[in-house]
Amino acid sequence: MSDEPDDTPATVVVDAARLERLASSALRRAGASEASLAAAVRAMMHASLHGIDSHGVRLTEHYCRMLCSGRIKRAPELRVEQSAAASAMIDADDGLGHYASYRAVEVGCRLAAAAGIAGVGVRRSSHYGAAGAYALAGAQQGFICFSTTNSDSMVALHNGAERFHGTNPLALAAPVPGRRPWLLDMATSSIPMNRVLLYLSLGKELPMNVAADRNGSPSIDPKEVEMLLPLGGAEYGYKGAGLAGMATLLSAVLTGGVLDSDAIPMYDDADQATPRNIGHFFWFIDPSYYVGRSRYEQGILRYLESLRAAPARAGTAGVMAPGDREWRIAEQRSAHGIPIDQDTARFLGAA
Amino acid sequence: MSDEPDDTPATVVVDAARLERLASSALRRAGASEASLAAAVRAMMHASLHGIDSHGVRLTEHYCRMLCSGRIKRAPELRVEQSAAASAMIDADDGLGHYASYRAVEVGCRLAAAAGIAGVGVRRSSHYGAAGAYALAGAQQGFICFSTTNSDSMVALHNGAERFHGTNPLALAAPVPGRRPWLLDMATSSIPMNRVLLYLSLGKELPMNVAADRNGSPSIDPKEVEMLLPLGGAEYGYKGAGLAGMATLLSAVLTGGVLDSDAIPMYDDADQATPRNIGHFFWFIDPSYYVGRSRYEQGILRYLESLRAAPARAGTAGVMAPGDREWRIAEQRSAHGIPIDQDTARFLGAA
Repeated sequence: MSDEPDDTPATVVVDAARLERLASSALRRAGASEASLAAAVRAMMHASLHGIDSHGVRLTEHYCRMLCSGRIKRAPELRVEQSAAASAMIDADDGLGHYASYRAVEVGCRLAAAAGIAGVGVRRSSHYGAAGAYALAGAQQGFICFSTTNSDSMVALHNGAERFHGTNPLALAAPVPGRRPWLLDMATSSIPMNRVLLYLSLGKELPMNVAADRNGSPSIDPKEVEMLLPLGGAEYGYKGAGLAGMATLLSAVLTGGVLDSDAIPMYDDADQATPRNIGHFFWFIDPSYYVGRSRYEQGILRYLESLRAAPARAGTAGVMAPGDREWRIAEQRSAHGIPIDQDTARFLGAA
Repeated sequence: MSDEPDDTPATVVVDAARLERLASSALRRAGASEASLAAAVRAMMHASLHGIDSHGVRLTEHYCRMLCSGRIKRAPELRVEQSAAASAMIDADDGLGHYASYRAVEVGCRLAAAAGIAGVGVRRSSHYGAAGAYALAGAQQGFICFSTTNSDSMVALHNGAERFHGTNPLALAAPVPGRRPWLLDMATSSIPMNRVLLYLSLGKELPMNVAADRNGSPSIDPKEVEMLLPLGGAEYGYKGAGLAGMATLLSAVLTGGVLDSDAIPMYDDADQATPRNIGHFFWFIDPSYYVGRSRYEQGILRYLESLRAAPARAGTAGVMAPGDREWRIAEQRSAHGIPIDQDTARFLGAA
């Protein structure tokens, strides 16, 4: 399962197909090439449909602004360089990050189908949306797929008193025969920064151990919060910080991308013209080359069966496999429409 | 940095070289082949030297018992099957897990040096000790290396009321030019089960949100504790549970190993004769095929420099890169000897 859905007040409900058309039109008006806008809309619709609203169509306006201000190139030309039997680098040419990332999935699945495993790095990219969109795309083609990116500093180190890592997500998806994949898509902080902003506007206290004041001391007061704490909180945050470092090592150090602390903040008002050089990394495994396809399929079905049969603690929502909550939301939203906030509705012309 | 060192009362201090000889002799007496015992001792000494005492030489007695009872084969013959340019499976022949795992590092580094990335699965194995031992071995050869294994059920699912996953570790190491590697080695629970046993014997309360009673409700009373909670605790435990699932998917489902909940418990008194079929998974990346070796090296040095320069929260031990604490302990223990508990000292003849 992914991070909790963002509980932003949402008052307009729009049919998925219409929302997709509206987001496409907006990006088209901002000058994005058809290939790059199709990828961005696909990734945003993945997020909007599955309840990851922070990475959904609400980002259309931001992307349009960046296409107009010059940070993101309107008609990028991807350069794919296969460096060995199982490795490739993609230069995203400063376009929308989703475009290079879906290309990475194509390239990676093709390489893994021949080499057993493949790893694809992306450099000179920008925000790629929900990490799980690409892991899912790989799993839908029959591969176990991992996706990560780094992002601008937002999260303290363990024992740190300054923003250091981004909320750097890790996503993994694994195919399940005849069913939707197993899909984990998680930030390496406990909560996203927009949760803090939401609680601030609602006048609510934050949970313990998820955010800190300007001295790095854990704080539940959203007015005081200057940074997030890594997953694990004040005691076990070295684990979350280590996982965030894994994202940075693979996405930035391995690809030649920018380090989190050097990255131009996504929502920087001062500089919206300089490309950010965000990096991503993906790997892909073809189970046929390990236990074999049919035993892999038996294995994952048995694993999920045993997981779903596990007893739940009284008073909880029950046990779920990663992804189960998303599929449930997607089903509901496919049937009844996708709730979006007023500002986004206005921008897209859906209000 | 790895999980916190186990604060088991340790009263005998033994020189590292002597400890290594004593552990080797014990395994030799139990009938282990020279090749397999050398690997087990190397992995245990990694743990003992770096402060991961739960996976150190104290396991010698357990391994000896399993070699004698028939669960672990004394003279296993590893079978390595390269299935494609970047993938291989190793059949561990029910021997000591360390033997097949160090072989996986050899095979994986060789494949990655040609293919850019490689993935090696191990099946029909047994306990492999500290996950970080193999990640470190790969990094020492210049590769970014990931290591994981599953293990018998100990940790509840998020919202679960029963042991489901093992404490399933994830380890990643990355080479740093002229210095010791970046090394993360973490369980996907907040604490290990032997921490609960230690607190029980000390009559101490556990931290909040790390363990649960038989109903799956968080408990700080070690007398009541029946299972661990996944990293993230009662609120964000779906992240820790998802990461534990990642370990199971890669180590067991992908290799044909046993699922955590089907695994014979490591310390089962009833059956010490049946092999456990534990699985492991490793991947290896050669940075030369991505950003290139020299830019990779500049990048990781810059990342670590910026990390170590990050301000620390007052009153804490300061910020550290994953591995830093281990290198410090190793330096100290290399110079002054390794503290071991009385039982282990007695068993090894070091008392």
